[in-house]
Amino acid sequence: MTRQNLDHIASRLESLEESIIHRLIDRAQWHLNEVAYAPGLSGFTGDETRSLFELRFYHHEKMDAKFGRFSAPEERPLNLDLPQPQRIVNIPETGLHIRDFNSVNIMQTILRTYHVLLPNICLSGDDGQYGSSVEHDVYAVQAIARRIHYGAFYVAESKFRADVDGYTELIKKRDVDALMKKLTREEVENKIINRVKNKVKRLQAKINTLVRNTIKPEPIIVYFKNFIIPTTKQGQVMYLLNREER
Amino acid sequence: MTRQNLDHIASRLESLEESIIHRLIDRAQWHLNEVAYAPGLSGFTGDETRSLFELRFYHHEKMDAKFGRFSAPEERPLNLDLPQPQRIVNIPETGLHIRDFNSVNIMQTILRTYHVLLPNICLSGDDGQYGSSVEHDVYAVQAIARRIHYGAFYVAESKFRADVDGYTELIKKRDVDALMKKLTREEVENKIINRVKNKVKRLQAKINTLVRNTIKPEPIIVYFKNFIIPTTKQGQVMYLLNREER
Repeated sequence: MTRQNLDHIASRLESLEESIIHRLIDRAQWHLNEVAYAPGLSGFTGDETRSLFELRFYHHEKMDAKFGRFSAPEERPLNLDLPQPQRIVNIPETGLHIRDFNSVNIMQTILRTYHVLLPNICLSGDDGQYGSSVEHDVYAVQAIARRIHYGAFYVAESKFRADVDGYTELIKKRDVDALMKKLTREEVENKIINRVKNKVKRLQAKINTLVRNTIKPEPIIVYFKNFIIPTTKQGQVMYLLNREER
Repeated sequence: MTRQNLDHIASRLESLEESIIHRLIDRAQWHLNEVAYAPGLSGFTGDETRSLFELRFYHHEKMDAKFGRFSAPEERPLNLDLPQPQRIVNIPETGLHIRDFNSVNIMQTILRTYHVLLPNICLSGDDGQYGSSVEHDVYAVQAIARRIHYGAFYVAESKFRADVDGYTELIKKRDVDALMKKLTREEVENKIINRVKNKVKRLQAKINTLVRNTIKPEPIIVYFKNFIIPTTKQGQVMYLLNREER
């Protein structure tokens, strides 16, 4: 992985971060609509136990699986009973050293924290637009998951290559705390937080608030700080512990 | 339809217009990728004749149909061989007077002009990201179609109610030209164009152009002026010609 690759990784992460904010703003155009997340209230014939949200996620991933989405390392599925791809996706050489991408699958955690975030960006209550809400939930969760898994795989590999001996020693010892400490870059984290804050403001500047619901920077900053950044690092540790020479 | 409804229609149209710009910016993060639109080159097992774009649209609409998307007047499908909804969608009373929403289905035209727009917002050439390109095509086309069909149905009905006798006479005569003239509001059209121009600039202000591809306001303005606005009006004429008292 050359310097060019590192620049590419950083700029891709920045672009993915922008997509997350876009998707959350989109979702926030609907109310919280708690019914859509309640098991057994989907009104969906033939599958009465899951929530409408879970059903939409499942059907979307079934479609995505057919189109080969999960061939890419950063695209990890929530559901595991998915059909085989119906097309061959040409993934460029990843440079990653891991046998099964699903060794680093953080979807369950992402989903759990997404549900914590939602009441902080949506208007409370019910507008009846359950279908649109869960449709945009899927887009938002996929954007968040793409950023986290992309950072977990590619940033970890690039950090490993910058200090092969140092990381190899800690991996052999399975020393999670030391790995976490070694891969932490506080100055980069602060830069991300500042950038996110400015983006949330910029993307909604001069917006017509009679027409669009806006989201405040604070919950998004908290979400990046307390969740996206630490979870990406947990993913990096998972990657390193599962890394193997080919 | 009260004054409140008219305000609601106007603000909904403005919000939908913002979504279109968001979706087009998203799509423009990938290259044109002409292969994805070529019939027979999808590489999709079991369906070799259609393009990857057509296949993605079809599979997405099949999923949407199961979730009941097309119960809403402004959500018109491109494909007609879709499954029945598996859930009952509670659509609030629309106030519309039309038997079959598909009497006003402009999807074919929307698709044709979308393909004309695409080379004006995407970087030319091929980046190999066909799956992501067509995924975001579907979101963009659905956003455009929602705005056009929403305007076609609800604006037409509200204009009709503001002058029942005037419109009834022209409808009886099937006088398309006179209907088109009667429902045209040039000052509103100019306002939309100006708003779109400012939004394209605002949404991309201070963007990091090393990380994200940006789109220029000109092609979007031309698209609204020469296509979205006139097609919405054609849809309004279609609605009026198919309008019937219940």
